[in-house]
Amino acid sequence: MPEETLDDPAYRASVVDLYGVLAYAELAAFAQMASDSQMAPSTELKARLGRCAVVEFGHYERVVAELAELGVTPEQAMAPFRRAVDDFHQRTRPSTWLEALVKAYVGNGIATDFYGEIGRYVDDRTREVVTAAGADAATADFVIEVVRGEIRRDRRVSGRLALFGRRLVGEALTQGQQVAAERDALAALAIGTVGRGGADLTEIAAMSQRLTERHSDRMANLGLDA
Amino acid sequence: MPEETLDDPAYRASVVDLYGVLAYAELAAFAQMASDSQMAPSTELKARLGRCAVVEFGHYERVVAELAELGVTPEQAMAPFRRAVDDFHQRTRPSTWLEALVKAYVGNGIATDFYGEIGRYVDDRTREVVTAAGADAATADFVIEVVRGEIRRDRRVSGRLALFGRRLVGEALTQGQQVAAERDALAALAIGTVGRGGADLTEIAAMSQRLTERHSDRMANLGLDA
Repeated sequence: MPEETLDDPAYRASVVDLYGVLAYAELAAFAQMASDSQMAPSTELKARLGRCAVVEFGHYERVVAELAELGVTPEQAMAPFRRAVDDFHQRTRPSTWLEALVKAYVGNGIATDFYGEIGRYVDDRTREVVTAAGADAATADFVIEVVRGEIRRDRRVSGRLALFGRRLVGEALTQGQQVAAERDALAALAIGTVGRGGADLTEIAAMSQRLTERHSDRMANLGLDA
Repeated sequence: MPEETLDDPAYRASVVDLYGVLAYAELAAFAQMASDSQMAPSTELKARLGRCAVVEFGHYERVVAELAELGVTPEQAMAPFRRAVDDFHQRTRPSTWLEALVKAYVGNGIATDFYGEIGRYVDDRTREVVTAAGADAATADFVIEVVRGEIRRDRRVSGRLALFGRRLVGEALTQGQQVAAERDALAALAIGTVGRGGADLTEIAAMSQRLTERHSDRMANLGLDA
């Protein structure tokens, strides 16, 4: 398959959608994580989650710079995705510090896997932007360390956190499918059919399946049942 | 007066206290502003307040680096000031987007004035750190622009915002006096009497007076009664 180029209007529209959802997801994650840092039991942990949030903001700015290259304002690109991302956060608001950590790791993980799926079908430059936005090993290491430690100390927390993890992946897939249904350009990009007709629901279901499997791996990393 | 040096244990303890309150104030302001950005009426404004929050986090990291030079962990230095700063935020939680903006500008402004007061009595290096941490012209410009615009559109918002501004300065001074009463080392630094006996209450009252006057100037910048 020849590489897509941004000269193709359909492909270009798909990339703008991709950057739009990516930018708003990063911006919202930044605010959520920084806000959640207020629940930290110590100043050290507060600063650590704060630093993870600042990394997200850096990703946001990188994507905004790419949008500027394409002559699109961040506001235009982000607008179609605001409701879905806000709804996700509204419905998965952490009520404890540990839930906040699980959300930071699991939420970012699902997003990164999704970008990985899309990365298979985009041009090199776009893939680089998307991959850089998903890279967040520091948050993962930090969360795994703290959550595993807490579970060792008190095994009873794990049932509730496992439940919260299921809510996270359920809401992420619900909102993702909502977006796919509304935004043909993005859905086509996600399953590699830009310029070859609309979204294929079977492909989207298969992708949801893969995302769910990788979510289970992450829950296992935390010492939790998926 | 010969310049103080960090070889003097009393002066050194004062500087550690100063960095501790500064670091925790920056960390808390970062989390508060990022959290408040979720109330923004547009993605553009959300990103702008988010960027202001990230600047605060950079200040925090700069101060932490200075503490490391002094061989003090951020946790040790911040611990004594956690309650006062948290109480301030608890009692001045913005309930609207405009209150969040007023708080970002007015709160930072009071802190910066306070650091300016202290800067008169510290060594050059410490003054530089403190001044850099207070520098935040971008937030001021942004808030003044947005708040004045909103007041032009609907004059009725100004009464409520003026009230909120009075609450901010009142709580800031209350918490500041609390800290001064508990932390002799910091109080001595604030009024230039390190190594020359405890805090002078008259001097502290005079400083509160100056801080209140500058607060009135800021409220006027916003188009609000102090």
